[in-house]
Amino acid sequence: MNYIKLWFRSIAQVMFQGNAWCGLFFLAGIFWGAYNSGTPAVAWGAVVGTTVSIITGYLLGYPRDEATQGLWGFNGVLVGCGLMTFLGSTPLGWLAVIICSAMTTWVRTGLNRLGAPLGVTSFTFPFVMSTWIFLAAARALGGLDVMALSHPMLPASGVHLLSAHGDALPSLLEFCEWTLRGVSQVFLIDSWITGVLFLIGLLIACPAAALWAVIGSAGGAALALLFGAPTEAIAHGMYGFSPVLTAIALGAAFYRRTLWRTIIWALVGVVGTVFVQASMNVLLSPVGLPSLTAPFCIATWLFMLPTIKSNQQTN
Amino acid sequence: MNYIKLWFRSIAQVMFQGNAWCGLFFLAGIFWGAYNSGTPAVAWGAVVGTTVSIITGYLLGYPRDEATQGLWGFNGVLVGCGLMTFLGSTPLGWLAVIICSAMTTWVRTGLNRLGAPLGVTSFTFPFVMSTWIFLAAARALGGLDVMALSHPMLPASGVHLLSAHGDALPSLLEFCEWTLRGVSQVFLIDSWITGVLFLIGLLIACPAAALWAVIGSAGGAALALLFGAPTEAIAHGMYGFSPVLTAIALGAAFYRRTLWRTIIWALVGVVGTVFVQASMNVLLSPVGLPSLTAPFCIATWLFMLPTIKSNQQTN
Amino acid sequence: MNYIKLWFRSIAQVMFQGNAWCGLFFLAGIFWGAYNSGTPAVAWGAVVGTTVSIITGYLLGYPRDEATQGLWGFNGVLVGCGLMTFLGSTPLGWLAVIICSAMTTWVRTGLNRLGAPLGVTSFTFPFVMSTWIFLAAARALGGLDVMALSHPMLPASGVHLLSAHGDALPSLLEFCEWTLRGVSQVFLIDSWITGVLFLIGLLIACPAAALWAVIGSAGGAALALLFGAPTEAIAHGMYGFSPVLTAIALGAAFYRRTLWRTIIWALVGVVGTVFVQASMNVLLSPVGLPSLTAPFCIATWLFMLPTIKSNQQTN
Repeated sequence: MNYIKLWFRSIAQVMFQGNAWCGLFFLAGIFWGAYNSGTPAVAWGAVVGTTVSIITGYLLGYPRDEATQGLWGFNGVLVGCGLMTFLGSTPLGWLAVIICSAMTTWVRTGLNRLGAPLGVTSFTFPFVMSTWIFLAAARALGGLDVMALSHPMLPASGVHLLSAHGDALPSLLEFCEWTLRGVSQVFLIDSWITGVLFLIGLLIACPAAALWAVIGSAGGAALALLFGAPTEAIAHGMYGFSPVLTAIALGAAFYRRTLWRTIIWALVGVVGTVFVQASMNVLLSPVGLPSLTAPFCIATWLFMLPTIKSNQQTN
Repeated sequence: MNYIKLWFRSIAQVMFQGNAWCGLFFLAGIFWGAYNSGTPAVAWGAVVGTTVSIITGYLLGYPRDEATQGLWGFNGVLVGCGLMTFLGSTPLGWLAVIICSAMTTWVRTGLNRLGAPLGVTSFTFPFVMSTWIFLAAARALGGLDVMALSHPMLPASGVHLLSAHGDALPSLLEFCEWTLRGVSQVFLIDSWITGVLFLIGLLIACPAAALWAVIGSAGGAALALLFGAPTEAIAHGMYGFSPVLTAIALGAAFYRRTLWRTIIWALVGVVGTVFVQASMNVLLSPVGLPSLTAPFCIATWLFMLPTIKSNQQTN
Repeated sequence: MNYIKLWFRSIAQVMFQGNAWCGLFFLAGIFWGAYNSGTPAVAWGAVVGTTVSIITGYLLGYPRDEATQGLWGFNGVLVGCGLMTFLGSTPLGWLAVIICSAMTTWVRTGLNRLGAPLGVTSFTFPFVMSTWIFLAAARALGGLDVMALSHPMLPASGVHLLSAHGDALPSLLEFCEWTLRGVSQVFLIDSWITGVLFLIGLLIACPAAALWAVIGSAGGAALALLFGAPTEAIAHGMYGFSPVLTAIALGAAFYRRTLWRTIIWALVGVVGTVFVQASMNVLLSPVGLPSLTAPFCIATWLFMLPTIKSNQQTN
């Protein structure tokens, strides 16, 4: 029974919730989105990734309290979704999922030790790092099919992008859909229904987190619209998923201050994340890699690091 | 009165001087250079960037002694110069200046905490990091005009560069002009008169720093000539500005040893900075970003890190 | 006499052996391979690099016990081999070897201070970092000849690579040759005879290290074959040299656990290194830099970091 709980908690921990019911709704959202878009391997990748990364923690004998909170598996879920989104569902592709999600468990332990003296954790960066390694490697390894990865290309010089700025604004209904897609993209799913399922999961675990997820996704999309990001990308939630995580992290998880300070800092964090997201889209273009949740990790570190010690010094 | 002093000191701190008169001459140099080259927005960017980053420090309640020394604002000055050099002077461009220069204040606090156990500070890297984020983002955001950024391209294979090596050597007068331009490029200004104004500012604050600025810029240009860097780039001070900062940092600011040891280490630091500069020009080419003062930061960290603990161990 | 010993030990330390006879066999292997392939400058680069980096340690007054173990010079050997493999053997090329190998001595001291609180050392990363700086810089500096560096290009989209997967498997004899070439590529030499000489050196110093070198090189090649890496690259040992170093580091040098734990961890480390190697080949493609031994450093850090503190916590 405990094993089932911690398994579902692992999925919920992607959005910082140690709640099995939340994880169940997340998994439902993943399955709906994956089957709906004709890529069921993404959902099964999540199942395999979670399982492998948790088993790895037991095999390595890591402290069990982390397992109980679901902290061994949340990077593995994302590895499964990520690799099965971009690589072909071949035997070698599945072997890559197994190796890569196992790897996140000790990479997380290692990176957390790097961050410990600074008071930050590695967030989803073990997933980002391991998945980048395997996706980049896949371009050199003929046995892995990279057809779903975008082609490496030099970043545009801004000329043709200007036209995007002239697009009509979305209607309120469209904007709500974009916001929900932003929430669903946290697990690389592009479906507003999945977004609703994710929000229900969050509501069960922590209503404030659900609120911040909406604020993060809507705020990210709005700011991206204001600065003229390609409408296509905004509509599919590509400017929403990292701000969702930053908003929950700063607004309802790690950063604890007076109410107003917390609110302002989380909002500024959303703004910062959008620019980090846009910059990473450009910087990764020549190697044809997706940014994954790196913009969230980088922005949140930049917003957490200055706050930690000033707190300790005050006390 | 104090506010005016710390405002000007912030500008002087770009070259490690807590001296308001020095900052005044720096600002004069920026205004001369910006207006002279028909880009007044660069000068006003410096004013806005300094002001915003200082106000941010007050709003975040950071320790005031750092403000008095001018340490809140020096990254903001550079953000203003940097973004207004490469982005169009549009309303969204100015909004980017405000967000980005505010960001440097807490990014600096965060990065300094990273460096504290190692005994190094973040130098101008908060400016570099924040400005890179916004310049890269600008290529994905149609609302920001990136016409002044160089086009992303694969680095040359060295063939056509060989011709540059055959160019005639500059006359002594030309070389002096190049050296002064190298000093002015610290604030992204390309003007020998600005270089003179900067040197006057340094002379007021610390004559040794002025001397090291000249040695750094001249040494950088000479070494770049010897190794056949493109003459065009050397003539506009592009191989001078980072060595200027390295030379002042190692020769007259942070590294304190016997006179000869200090002199030799600063000179070797200038040599190292030139190669880091050349390498960053190449590495950043596919994403079309300028190196900003990153070569100075990286080289100076590489030259400071090994010296710090050996000092502590000796004592 | 001591100086001769520490000089040869420096060469042996590339594979973590403080044994002068081992270093002698390594040097013999380098000379054989370099002269045999018509690039004698690579061998003399090794001699110059070792010498310069050791002298630098004396000039900087670094603690002598590190010198006795041969720890000042091992990055310098590799700089000499690396720069003379990729740059032309011109006066400026040799000046670059001298500056770059001197630099590794203090960069190593600095990076080791970064790693000390985490319980890891910088391995061969001072060589990697310094050599990357000079190789990248060489593309901007017409005085350095970069003809032997591969052209910068966008990574392939995987299409034409698939054909490589269809190649016939090597015979056992061919595979043994590939394995030996993988060992020789640690010093950027492509010769199975050099591989034999290196293994003899390791056998003298530490038979377990020789065994792990073979396992690492063979394992790396086999896994690269399984995942369809280009046969040409595998045949020349390009998927072997980093796993060789990882296997020795985890199997017979730094990581000490029960026999079976050590064996399993080193084998998993070899697997991880192959994917890091493949990914770095792709990531460095737009700037046209070789991965050098970076895949070994990165993979070994990822595998060492999680183990260190858990050890301290147990005790």
